[in-house]
Amino acid sequence: MSTGFHEWMKATQANFEVSLAAFLPAETVLPERLHQAMRYAALDGGKRVRPLLVYAAGRLFDAPAGLLARAAAALEMIHAYSLVHDDMPCMDDDALRRGKPTVHVKYDEATALLVGDALQAQAFLVLSAEDASDAAIAEMATRKLSMVRLLAQAAGSVGMCGGQAIDLASVGLALTQDQLEQMHRLKTGALLRASVLMGAMSGKTLSASEITALDSYAGAIGLAFQVVDDVLDATADSATLGKTAGKDAADNKPTYVSILGLDASRQLAEKLCSDAHAALLPFGDKAQQLHDLADLIVQRKA
Amino acid sequence: MSTGFHEWMKATQANFEVSLAAFLPAETVLPERLHQAMRYAALDGGKRVRPLLVYAAGRLFDAPAGLLARAAAALEMIHAYSLVHDDMPCMDDDALRRGKPTVHVKYDEATALLVGDALQAQAFLVLSAEDASDAAIAEMATRKLSMVRLLAQAAGSVGMCGGQAIDLASVGLALTQDQLEQMHRLKTGALLRASVLMGAMSGKTLSASEITALDSYAGAIGLAFQVVDDVLDATADSATLGKTAGKDAADNKPTYVSILGLDASRQLAEKLCSDAHAALLPFGDKAQQLHDLADLIVQRKA
Repeated sequence: MSTGFHEWMKATQANFEVSLAAFLPAETVLPERLHQAMRYAALDGGKRVRPLLVYAAGRLFDAPAGLLARAAAALEMIHAYSLVHDDMPCMDDDALRRGKPTVHVKYDEATALLVGDALQAQAFLVLSAEDASDAAIAEMATRKLSMVRLLAQAAGSVGMCGGQAIDLASVGLALTQDQLEQMHRLKTGALLRASVLMGAMSGKTLSASEITALDSYAGAIGLAFQVVDDVLDATADSATLGKTAGKDAADNKPTYVSILGLDASRQLAEKLCSDAHAALLPFGDKAQQLHDLADLIVQRKA
Repeated sequence: MSTGFHEWMKATQANFEVSLAAFLPAETVLPERLHQAMRYAALDGGKRVRPLLVYAAGRLFDAPAGLLARAAAALEMIHAYSLVHDDMPCMDDDALRRGKPTVHVKYDEATALLVGDALQAQAFLVLSAEDASDAAIAEMATRKLSMVRLLAQAAGSVGMCGGQAIDLASVGLALTQDQLEQMHRLKTGALLRASVLMGAMSGKTLSASEITALDSYAGAIGLAFQVVDDVLDATADSATLGKTAGKDAADNKPTYVSILGLDASRQLAEKLCSDAHAALLPFGDKAQQLHDLADLIVQRKA
């Protein structure tokens, strides 16, 4: 990672936290308990990988900060809602998330269901809302509409939700590496790809070759992210992870570690990181943060 | 109801069913079981009140048929997802919907959760997608983006989801008529209002006075819809309703019938219908279908 990356990351995370808090409904607005639970689910947690990708990709084409903030918040709301629903008893039935009780444990199941539903709607509301500064860019409505489309596709049945459905159906099955990859490309990859593309699209309409290069980068970090997740799930403890460790093996879920073993999984993550770096070459120095984020994803410890 | 209304309604419902089927992912696309369950939840059911309102409001300003079809499908997908989640064991725990087993009964709970999540994303995807004919209208992106915003607001925590949260919190409480009205204005009213406004917005950018008149119409039919729902729940049988009758009383939920009694509830529905008709006067003959839909909502038997 390059000099200054850590400072950029800390500052970006801090700024993001402020804008996410502003984009969520206030706890004092009716229905207060639902809004309180939405904020509990979305604020003060996680590494904010998706927002970091949005901001890093936004640097490629000098995207306006206001639109990046909306894109980053929308993506994190979709991510947060998916965690809330994924933790529910009828899915993974997990009691701990980011070191805190999950929403259905802290509140109740019905509230967790509604929190997820409302966070998804809020994501599209935040992304489609108008800013006073929009008038300065003639194509702003077209740009935002394209981003709504991309987010909806990434979140839906041929994206994140579809990946979760395949994940559920694969419990106890002996998946091949290709099938595992396909599942993760949808389950976590789709939203990471949307983060990179939405960040870049905030700055301008992308050319076909720019989309191809960013797709290649996003595909590599998306898989690397999952491979590292599986390695950490098999090697780290719950306190470090902030969630229940060893759960995949206990749930009899196929993982990279169960298919490839620990060493080959670590090597795969390194190779994917190199692939990600190579895909960024056309963008030169402006891609420095994206380059460093690939390192961060592979080197993280939680 | 005027001559020809019944024929218009049947033709509109039939056309809508075809376009909704086309806007849902095919059962042959991976993940097949999720897509099959999404289609099970959304197709072949209900009175399609929201799509009818979209098409009827579309007549006010001669909206393009393609955009109306997108708006109608998006609204019905949001409605369908809310029913799937509402029927789940942690919410109303209902086994019968539109005369068929509910999604979590027919499939399983995890699938029902994902079906609802994916239908919500699909709604925003369908609404934001491009048509070849969009180029003919310069402001099309602005128009679609406004509709995304309106739908997101109506579906989210200060709309439908918020109403459901208030509904959950009010079980067993003695609500006043005002509190009950507030809950329903969010729970069912927000999406009905969005249907009317999105239909009209498909044709042109609305003036403030047009919005006020349509709001007044939508508010009246929204409440009338709920009052009639409560009357039917107290008087009709499950076979006629296609869902479990008498459930509100059994669940100790406040209703218009429990607060006002049966006769006063029926009178209130009639008054709201007159209010709805009055709100349409500025639009003249072009509002005939909206006028007749108010009658339909109050006179329905299921």
